[in-house]
Amino acid sequence: MVESRLTGPVRVVGVGLLGTSIGLGLRARGVEVILADASPTHLSIAVDYGAGRIAVEGDEPQLIVVCVPPDVTARVVAAELEAFPRAIVTDVASVKLAPLHELRAAGADVSRYVGTHPMAGAERGGPLSGRVDLFVGRPWVVTAHDGISYQRGSVIDDLILDLGGSLVEMTPEAHDRSVALVSHVPQVISSLMARRLVDAPGAAVNLAGQGLRDVTRIAASDPELWVQILGANAAPVASILRLFSQDLERMIETLEAPEAVGASRRLAEELAGGNAGVARIPGKHGVDRRYAQLVVMVDDSPGELARLLAEIGEAGVNLEDLRLEHSPGAQIGFADISVLPEQLGYLVEFLRARGWRIAG
Amino acid sequence: MVESRLTGPVRVVGVGLLGTSIGLGLRARGVEVILADASPTHLSIAVDYGAGRIAVEGDEPQLIVVCVPPDVTARVVAAELEAFPRAIVTDVASVKLAPLHELRAAGADVSRYVGTHPMAGAERGGPLSGRVDLFVGRPWVVTAHDGISYQRGSVIDDLILDLGGSLVEMTPEAHDRSVALVSHVPQVISSLMARRLVDAPGAAVNLAGQGLRDVTRIAASDPELWVQILGANAAPVASILRLFSQDLERMIETLEAPEAVGASRRLAEELAGGNAGVARIPGKHGVDRRYAQLVVMVDDSPGELARLLAEIGEAGVNLEDLRLEHSPGAQIGFADISVLPEQLGYLVEFLRARGWRIAG
Repeated sequence: MVESRLTGPVRVVGVGLLGTSIGLGLRARGVEVILADASPTHLSIAVDYGAGRIAVEGDEPQLIVVCVPPDVTARVVAAELEAFPRAIVTDVASVKLAPLHELRAAGADVSRYVGTHPMAGAERGGPLSGRVDLFVGRPWVVTAHDGISYQRGSVIDDLILDLGGSLVEMTPEAHDRSVALVSHVPQVISSLMARRLVDAPGAAVNLAGQGLRDVTRIAASDPELWVQILGANAAPVASILRLFSQDLERMIETLEAPEAVGASRRLAEELAGGNAGVARIPGKHGVDRRYAQLVVMVDDSPGELARLLAEIGEAGVNLEDLRLEHSPGAQIGFADISVLPEQLGYLVEFLRARGWRIAG
Repeated sequence: MVESRLTGPVRVVGVGLLGTSIGLGLRARGVEVILADASPTHLSIAVDYGAGRIAVEGDEPQLIVVCVPPDVTARVVAAELEAFPRAIVTDVASVKLAPLHELRAAGADVSRYVGTHPMAGAERGGPLSGRVDLFVGRPWVVTAHDGISYQRGSVIDDLILDLGGSLVEMTPEAHDRSVALVSHVPQVISSLMARRLVDAPGAAVNLAGQGLRDVTRIAASDPELWVQILGANAAPVASILRLFSQDLERMIETLEAPEAVGASRRLAEELAGGNAGVARIPGKHGVDRRYAQLVVMVDDSPGELARLLAEIGEAGVNLEDLRLEHSPGAQIGFADISVLPEQLGYLVEFLRARGWRIAG
């Protein structure tokens, strides 16, 4: 276990997915974690799960992490600043300017507050979805402001580094514009696309393939949470949607006159623009960048895959992830194996020496 | 091997992903397959891959399947109808009304033609992406028209059933409206979303998470192919985009006045509409409905997974798919196992009797 640089206890307010994951991650580093939540049920699940202990009279947290819904974040942060006058307080809400404005307007002591936002989540919420490694390798934005000193803020950096996050510094304004583009606008677009399916004939919806499923996956998100997020970041979201709407209008006009001169060229340009945009997203889709991948060809018989895994075990290499793909009719399957990057070269040699065919 | 009901040879024109997969699937049923392609390289790859043989003088195909890009589909279908006056001809292009109109206008013998469209694809094209099971369990639309008799069309049904497809009958008009909604409009929306990233600051794009990745995944599609598809189905796509645009305009107006009376309610309604739409898409995301799933808890050590797989082998059950998920810090991993549905109950009992914990 690597020692944490955090000294005092950390108080986590709100034990949903993020709060519970923060508790689990800090406990794994030996940090004392104090948990609080408005729901006694959630609180006792998080405690049982090993994310920390229940608060007691006289607690003196060094750092408080507020992990509550966006619309109550500022209020809870203000209450924590008041209740623990020596603690540094942060929050993890997905908008950053609105809570800061609200805290200043309420006269809270923002010299002990910095807002942050970890870019991590999961399909399900609640304490049971908590994961010790939720933040590993994920960007975690810190939105410093002039009212807090460098020294006081450094405890936040320690928190993020402890949890394996990748620290990104931005102003609250730049953060809110950035997440409008990469998170809030995609949510709106996905929801509006899915909305088109409501009145569609069943025969049409039954033809849905993976493309539609991917585009609309996040349309299944919780409306209550998203009303709060969109409401708190309305102006940046609206201005990007305006630009989207202009592109869309041009696309519709082109499709309404597909035989017009230049129509095909205009369609091609719009689609190529999409190619260029998606190419800017870092990281290969669906591949966890913490690990290195190799693909081993495996004969389609149950014993073969077991033999492969046994030999990987003999090599002393731990599988971080594994996916088997084969066609029912095919004689060969492919085992997609993820291992720690530093073990990849050794494992490839080890398996080759034993006659395994490495496909990639 | 199950006998095919197809009697004569099947000629496949165009050996990309679809043509090669059709060849592989028919060969697996013992059907004689004749391959043709404008590219000698692609043709020889498909032949080597086992998808069929090269055409020779005097071939008398019972059925011809044209698997070429949409903009040349009608021309190639017309040429095949002419060259093989006893054969039934079909195609697999993703629009169906335009080719039929074009064939009629060219005076082709449409009494031997029915257009079809298998709802199957893959990220990569070309003969090397061909898969023997590409069409298994996938909808395959047959767009009958008044000019062809039931008896002549039945050979198309045999083709689809041979390849494991799920036969769906629609008029060409209903087909084109349906795919506009579930395939072509999502493509446009995804491309326009991705286009917003082109001029974005790097710091913003670096915050991208899985939501943006999913929404924009198909924006990486080939513009050349999509110009053809959108051009050939322009009117249905434009009319759905108009409705999308009206919803979008309302959303923007709401976000431009987020403090207005009823703004939160309107946002919630739009988002709930997205929930309702996505709920109409059949099948669980990412799960292959041909198989049944079980989740087994596995201690985080290499030997444990190998032991599990060896015992599944002892049970005589073949793994159809396997995915291992665990957090680096966690003591427990989860093996998501796919097996044939009829083997699920037996396997669960077998594994429980040996002390494995079944998590779901």
